[in-house]
Amino acid sequence: MAIVRITLNVPAEKTRLTKNAFYAQSGGVTAVINATACGVLESARKHKNKIGKVLAGRNGILGALTEDLIDTSKESAKAIAALRHTPGGAFGSARYKLKGLEENRAEYERLIEVFRAHDIGYFFYNGGGDSMDTAHKVSQLSKKLGFPITCIGIPKTVDNDLAVTDVCPGFGSVAKYVAVSTCEAALDVASMAKTSTKVFILEVMGRHAGWIAAAAGLAGTTPAEPPHVILFPESPFDERAFLTRVKHSVQRYDYCVIVVSEGVRHPDGRFLAESGKRDAFGHAQLGGAATTVAAIVQDHLGYKYHYAIADYLQRSARHIASKVDVEQAYAVGRRAVELALAGENAVMPTIIRESDAPYRWKLGHVALGRVANREKKLPRSFISRDGFAITPACRRYLQPLIVGEDYPPYRNGLPAYVALKNKSVARRLKNKFVLT
Amino acid sequence: MAIVRITLNVPAEKTRLTKNAFYAQSGGVTAVINATACGVLESARKHKNKIGKVLAGRNGILGALTEDLIDTSKESAKAIAALRHTPGGAFGSARYKLKGLEENRAEYERLIEVFRAHDIGYFFYNGGGDSMDTAHKVSQLSKKLGFPITCIGIPKTVDNDLAVTDVCPGFGSVAKYVAVSTCEAALDVASMAKTSTKVFILEVMGRHAGWIAAAAGLAGTTPAEPPHVILFPESPFDERAFLTRVKHSVQRYDYCVIVVSEGVRHPDGRFLAESGKRDAFGHAQLGGAATTVAAIVQDHLGYKYHYAIADYLQRSARHIASKVDVEQAYAVGRRAVELALAGENAVMPTIIRESDAPYRWKLGHVALGRVANREKKLPRSFISRDGFAITPACRRYLQPLIVGEDYPPYRNGLPAYVALKNKSVARRLKNKFVLT
Repeated sequence: MAIVRITLNVPAEKTRLTKNAFYAQSGGVTAVINATACGVLESARKHKNKIGKVLAGRNGILGALTEDLIDTSKESAKAIAALRHTPGGAFGSARYKLKGLEENRAEYERLIEVFRAHDIGYFFYNGGGDSMDTAHKVSQLSKKLGFPITCIGIPKTVDNDLAVTDVCPGFGSVAKYVAVSTCEAALDVASMAKTSTKVFILEVMGRHAGWIAAAAGLAGTTPAEPPHVILFPESPFDERAFLTRVKHSVQRYDYCVIVVSEGVRHPDGRFLAESGKRDAFGHAQLGGAATTVAAIVQDHLGYKYHYAIADYLQRSARHIASKVDVEQAYAVGRRAVELALAGENAVMPTIIRESDAPYRWKLGHVALGRVANREKKLPRSFISRDGFAITPACRRYLQPLIVGEDYPPYRNGLPAYVALKNKSVARRLKNKFVLT
Repeated sequence: MAIVRITLNVPAEKTRLTKNAFYAQSGGVTAVINATACGVLESARKHKNKIGKVLAGRNGILGALTEDLIDTSKESAKAIAALRHTPGGAFGSARYKLKGLEENRAEYERLIEVFRAHDIGYFFYNGGGDSMDTAHKVSQLSKKLGFPITCIGIPKTVDNDLAVTDVCPGFGSVAKYVAVSTCEAALDVASMAKTSTKVFILEVMGRHAGWIAAAAGLAGTTPAEPPHVILFPESPFDERAFLTRVKHSVQRYDYCVIVVSEGVRHPDGRFLAESGKRDAFGHAQLGGAATTVAAIVQDHLGYKYHYAIADYLQRSARHIASKVDVEQAYAVGRRAVELALAGENAVMPTIIRESDAPYRWKLGHVALGRVANREKKLPRSFISRDGFAITPACRRYLQPLIVGEDYPPYRNGLPAYVALKNKSVARRLKNKFVLT
C-alpha cells in the first residue's frame, strides 16, 4: 500500500522533469546571506515537481569540487525558516575563485561531473562579482559539454560593489550597524571630551569602495553632528587637509568623530593599513587604518583618542539588521528560484529602485556577463567636494536602505540562531578532486 | 490671577523645606547611565515639596567646581523619559578625581560654596569607586563646615568592579553586547574557516578586572562552542599554553575565537597592549591587546586571523542593552532620591541578588565608606583551572544579567536618542575657580 502510494506520487514523466539544485555561498558572509538561502530553500520546496532536492555545497564551491554536498531536505521547515534571522554562512562559504576556463578547465569540468552525478539541473551561486563570473563560466561550459544546467547568480556583498543592481543584499545591514554604532559612540565621546577622549576613530570595511564608510554619514545631518570626518578609499589621503579638519572639529565642537575605511590609501597608492601580507586571492591583507590615523592625530595634534575596529562584528551583526535588507535578501533568493523555473539562465536577480522617498523597489534581473568581475565604486557625486563627507545625493541613496528593524528571537539573553544538521549526501564519484 | 495661583502653590513653609539637588555623571559613561539620570529626575519631580530643581553638573563634577550648572527643570517630561533609552552622558561626564581632603581641601570647599549659592541640599553622584569616595568626602566636610547636605552615591560602571553591590548598572548591557557580538562574529568565522580566517580575536574593555571578557563566555556552553579562549587580566599571559590551546581549537573545530581583555599582562606585569614598536612611518605602534595576540598567533602558528576592537562601541551600544540592566539602572536612580528623602546620607543604593534562577533581585544600600576606592575583581572561582574559560559558577552569576531586550524607538532607521536643551543656570558667584 505504501509502495503503491509512492509510485503514484512519483510518476515516470515527473521523475524525468525533476532535477536537483545546487546552492552555494561564496566569499565573505553577511548578516543576511542566510536569509537569501532561506528564500531559495523555501521557494524550491514549493516546487517539488520541478526541483527535487536542494544540495548545498559544504564550504561553498569547494563542496561541489570535492563532492562534499549537504542534503538540505533533511532540515525541518522550522530550521529553514530560522535561517532568515541567522548570520554567517549556514553551509560554510569559501574564498575560492575559479580560474579562467583556459587556465583551469579541469575545475569547471569537475563541477559538471559532480552536477551530473547528483542529477543537478540548477546551479544557484550566492556571492559577489567573482562568483557571478564563475556562474557565468559554468553556464557557458555546460552548453559546450552537452550538460544543460540552469545557472543563476544571487547577489551578496556587504561592500555594495556589484554592478547593475541598485543595492546588494548584506549592505543595508552593515550600513545600519555602522550608522547606529557611529551615532552611539559619538554620544559617548561627546560626553567625555571635556576631560578625556577628544578624537574617536571607527574603522570600517570597504577595500576598494567607500559605501560602508559613507553609511556612517547617516548618523549626522549637519556639520556639527558626527561623523565629522569620513575617509573614503576613493579619496587619496591628504594628511594636511585631514589634520586641519580634525583640529577645526575639536576647536568648534570639543570633539571629533572620524570614520575610516580600511581601504584608504596614501597619494602614492599604498594603503594606510598595509601590513605587507596577502590573502588567498592575492589581495593585500589590511588591518589597522584606524591605528595609523590615531598615530597621525597623536603625533600632530596630541589629542587623546580612542579607536574601534568593527571588523567581522559589522557584517555579522544580525541583531541590528536592516528590515529592508532582510526583505531584499530573502526576495533575491526566492526570485532566483522563480527565474530558474521560468526558464531564465545565466542571470542574476537585481534590485531596482523606483523611488527614494517613499522608498519603492522591485526585482529585476540581468545577464551574468554584465555583472561578472565588475566593481561599482562610490560615485564621485556622493562624496563632498572636500572629500570628507557625503553629499545630499548620497544620503538620498543610502537613507532608505537602513530603515526598519528585524530583530531575531532571543533565548536567555542571546539571539536564537539556528545551527543546521548539515547531513552529507553519499558520494557517487570514485575519483577525488585535488584542489590546486 | 496667575500670580495668586503661584503664590498659593509655594507656601512659605514649603519654600524653607525645599532644597535643590545636584546631580552629576562621573567617569566613563555607559549605555544606561542616562536611565539612572531618568530615574533620579523623574523621582525628584514627584517630590517637588522637598526637592526644588535638579541642577546637573555640566561635564560632571567640573560643572559644580566651575559653577556651570544645567537647569533640568527646563526639560520636558518627554525628554526626561527619553533619557531611559539614550546612551552616553546627557549632561557630560568627567574623568576628574578630587584629591584627598588634605591635598586639596579647596576643591571640597568650593563644591560646598557652589552648593550653598544654589541652595542645594542633595548631592547625587553617579559613578564608580572614585566617585563614591568623592561623595563620601563631601558628606564628611559638609558637616565640618556647617552646611548640611545629603550625599548619595549612585553606582555606574561597565567594569562591574564596585564593591558590595551584586552588579553595577552598565555592566549587564556591555555583557550582552560582548556575548551577542562574540556569538555573531563566531558564526561568521566558522563559515569562512575552511579557506580563509581561522582565528578571530575580539578585544574588550576591562583594564583591571575581567568581568567583561568573562561575559563573552556566555556565547557558548560547551568547549566546542566559541569563545574557545578567553584571556583575563587576572591570569598572567602564558604564551605557550595559549598557543597550545589555539592550535588545538583550530585542529579540532577548524577555527578559534579568542576574547582578550585590554588589561591582560605578561607575567612580568607589562600590558600585552604595550608593544613599544614603531610602524613604517615612525609612529609609535599603539597596539592594542588584540594586535599583540594576533601577531603572536601569526608568528607561531601562521593562521590567518582577523581582529576587532570593540572599544567605545561596547559601552555605548544602547541598541542591544540588557533589559535587566536598564531596569536596575533606572531603579538605583529612583532609589537614590528615595533614600535621600528618607533621611539617609552618605550611602549608595545597591543591587542584592536573591536567586540566580529564576533571577530575583531587590534594592539595598550601603555606606559610601564601604565602597569608596575599592575594586571587585573577578573571583578566582569564576575562571577555569587552565585560566582560559569561565566556570559554571561564573555562568550562573552572569547569565541573568543579559536577559531581556529593551530596544530604543527608531526614526528613519536610527535610534531616536534625545539631545537635551541643557540650559545653564545663571551664575551667582563672583569668584572663578581654577582647576588644578
